[in-house]
Amino acid sequence: MGRRDLEPEEILRLERDQVVFLDQRRLPDEEAEVACRSSAEVAEAIRGMVVRGAPAIGIAAAYGYALASERGEDLDAAYELLAGARPTAVNLRWALDEMRRADGSPRARAVAIHEEEVERCRVMSEHAGDLLEPGTRALTHCNAGGLATGGYGTAVGALRTAWERRLVTHVFVGETRPLLQGARLTAWELERAGVPHTVIADSAAGAMMAAGEVDCVFTGADRIARNGDTANKIGTYGLAVLARHHAIPLYVVAPTTTIDQGASTGAEIPIEERDGAEVTARFPARNPAFDVTPGTLIAAIVTERGVHRAPYGASLAGRPLTPA
Amino acid sequence: MGRRDLEPEEILRLERDQVVFLDQRRLPDEEAEVACRSSAEVAEAIRGMVVRGAPAIGIAAAYGYALASERGEDLDAAYELLAGARPTAVNLRWALDEMRRADGSPRARAVAIHEEEVERCRVMSEHAGDLLEPGTRALTHCNAGGLATGGYGTAVGALRTAWERRLVTHVFVGETRPLLQGARLTAWELERAGVPHTVIADSAAGAMMAAGEVDCVFTGADRIARNGDTANKIGTYGLAVLARHHAIPLYVVAPTTTIDQGASTGAEIPIEERDGAEVTARFPARNPAFDVTPGTLIAAIVTERGVHRAPYGASLAGRPLTPA
Repeated sequence: MGRRDLEPEEILRLERDQVVFLDQRRLPDEEAEVACRSSAEVAEAIRGMVVRGAPAIGIAAAYGYALASERGEDLDAAYELLAGARPTAVNLRWALDEMRRADGSPRARAVAIHEEEVERCRVMSEHAGDLLEPGTRALTHCNAGGLATGGYGTAVGALRTAWERRLVTHVFVGETRPLLQGARLTAWELERAGVPHTVIADSAAGAMMAAGEVDCVFTGADRIARNGDTANKIGTYGLAVLARHHAIPLYVVAPTTTIDQGASTGAEIPIEERDGAEVTARFPARNPAFDVTPGTLIAAIVTERGVHRAPYGASLAGRPLTPA
Repeated sequence: MGRRDLEPEEILRLERDQVVFLDQRRLPDEEAEVACRSSAEVAEAIRGMVVRGAPAIGIAAAYGYALASERGEDLDAAYELLAGARPTAVNLRWALDEMRRADGSPRARAVAIHEEEVERCRVMSEHAGDLLEPGTRALTHCNAGGLATGGYGTAVGALRTAWERRLVTHVFVGETRPLLQGARLTAWELERAGVPHTVIADSAAGAMMAAGEVDCVFTGADRIARNGDTANKIGTYGLAVLARHHAIPLYVVAPTTTIDQGASTGAEIPIEERDGAEVTARFPARNPAFDVTPGTLIAAIVTERGVHRAPYGASLAGRPLTPA
């Protein structure tokens, strides 16, 4: 509370000869930084979740590629290493393709990608407000805040803008096992922004909905197929089914850089399986990091272009949006 | 694996002048015991979840009452203290009423309650097998094993019997935040029994169902209303909604001592709110310990009397069951 805003360059930045990350594994207990001096070190930071969130790892990859370029690394190898760091978010490959295509200074392009992503967040957060009535109590999952996007945030940015506009009054935060991005990162961001919030166990969402305490669900996205099927943090699909059962809308907020024009449905999205030891190191465990929510369970997808409604095909492909 | 079975008296027992509990808070890392020398200490052990699970805390209360009786404590005060230790499970009050009504030795009646609950588990576990086809992969939540019932278990007992009968081939275990009864206790019991199992984050259940990896859900119960509405560990309701969405049956396995004939629907069941610090001590949190699953989302309720099917009113009230 009362603290200044989290600046984009505090989350990640390209310095003279290194990429510096706020270490998201250690928040909220410690605000420590990790410096990476090669594309391999950046790829390792992405894989190890020093930095996470689809737009943020795209920006990280762009910075890693710029660093590789300035260091004279083999750029094809750097591209593959960075693109392969995590499989689900399409933003990684999108950002690297942008870097490859860039004419001028790789450094300038990477910085611009970062600035553009933050600007997209601000614009989509305004659009999301069009969906809400005053007095809304929202539930969010994982962290789709500034930490996930290099600044401001998608779903959390939208909730924060809506709170400033007196539309949202309270945010419930699913803790998001196993790595607790909700309880560690989203709650921390909401506290800094002064937005009233309550953390719950992921499994308490159903009871909160049944009790009439949740009016809508807001999440980010890691990859959106052309038909609106959306890969996001494990648990999003369960929230979508619960939301439908309670006639509560679930909104996905994400930049167009998260849309995979090469995937016609969610069945084509690769789902990362992480080490079961993140769940329990003592017994056998499975740890899918994402799930796919069918577009049919999503009330609207909000991008910087506006509010997309089902059927999503035309507007996600870039055709004009009808006003919400 | 390969270890001998967990005996009822290892879970809890009445010694000469104390009630001894296997400390469920410290499993699976340590097999430590806690000894309670008064009804107040037993109530504190129940409240602090040294012992948990509806049938087990009923047995604990019976032992506490027997101890109070032998120590010459004020028995009305002991009754109220033990009955009030946790609000949701009806077994506490059931066991204490049994103790109050008993003619002979309180010690003998408490031991008999323990033996009867374990015997009910064995009988209902056989009945549950009638619901299953060979090759079934089941999901369970929280711990409805021997630790929760003083021996053998309800839902976990049923899965174990079904595994011995080659009906169930694999058990997925929701870790059950915030106190991880699934990842700590159920996995430990299944490992001892040699039943193949995989722990998942609670929020991964939807993705596992969507992938066709789960054929049914088995849970215990903390209190069942006359119409079949069932209070159980937080998250059970969400699993029931997900199961219905995927056309997967959810079965509740519990002794008749868990049926509250005084509650016509789940709306009359008090839900315990525990300290938010069990979820996160750093940010505001809510921590409802149970939720209520409508009987309409439960495919069958299995008791020691047999398999109850909707509408539940008549058979839960004690009228004859039609064969499954």
